[in-house]
Amino acid sequence: MKLQIVCAGKVKDTWLREAIEEYTKRLSRFCSLSIIEVPDAPDHLPREQALKKEGDAMLAKIKPSSLLWLMDLSGVTMDSVRFSETLIRAFDQGGAELTIMIGGSNGFSREVLDRADFRVRFSDMTMTHTMARLFLVEQCYRAFKIANNESYHK
Amino acid sequence: MKLQIVCAGKVKDTWLREAIEEYTKRLSRFCSLSIIEVPDAPDHLPREQALKKEGDAMLAKIKPSSLLWLMDLSGVTMDSVRFSETLIRAFDQGGAELTIMIGGSNGFSREVLDRADFRVRFSDMTMTHTMARLFLVEQCYRAFKIANNESYHK
Repeated sequence: MKLQIVCAGKVKDTWLREAIEEYTKRLSRFCSLSIIEVPDAPDHLPREQALKKEGDAMLAKIKPSSLLWLMDLSGVTMDSVRFSETLIRAFDQGGAELTIMIGGSNGFSREVLDRADFRVRFSDMTMTHTMARLFLVEQCYRAFKIANNESYHK
Repeated sequence: MKLQIVCAGKVKDTWLREAIEEYTKRLSRFCSLSIIEVPDAPDHLPREQALKKEGDAMLAKIKPSSLLWLMDLSGVTMDSVRFSETLIRAFDQGGAELTIMIGGSNGFSREVLDRADFRVRFSDMTMTHTMARLFLVEQCYRAFKIANNESYHK
């Protein structure tokens, strides 16, 4: 099982980098996780162009055979158990690789939305994209623990 | 303006402690924030008793005049802008102090629910209570930035 997270922008805070590393280590029991960062689109670009540029850079990182999920405000909301079921089913049905993309506050380009197999919303609230990354790896770890009937501190 | 966060259990991860300290520092421009930890209820207690014990310990920490919000899965969902408006209004109308309590995975005791003025849900997903704490301080900081029309990295 391979899980790939693709996101724009670098994590600058040391604490957040450590946190994400910690969950990546824990997840290694269940799947091979790689996190791929593409550069943020430059601020001076108009919104649509920035989305397109960022989207194209993200799409270039995924295999044609990979399933693609988006973590996006326009997605479906679900609790952790349902997220776990959906994640495991995706791995079972979808073959060897699942890619999850984390969008910026402006969402995704048309090309990314067209390529996506599924969209999930973690919260109605706007988060920093680095916090979204932490939330995502934590929920993926939780998802595998739930699927394995392992207890997990809440 | 005083903001008080009351929660059960200690933050053990160093990275999370640093993160919360960082946001506490940033929030100090807008309000005086204190975070009060009460002990987790012992595991051996039946669920209802554990909730009651934890709830009573949390209620003991708040002033009769304080507004009380709960961060709870049974609460209302809202986006960051609406959360900001609601938070600022609470400060304006509610007087000098707002207390926000973070519940455990089993929710809150009847006594806490009866005392509460408002319940808010940040996500349908189950989070670690320490992650919930980080999410909360980040959204409070964001709320003040939004209310002050200050730009904030998303």
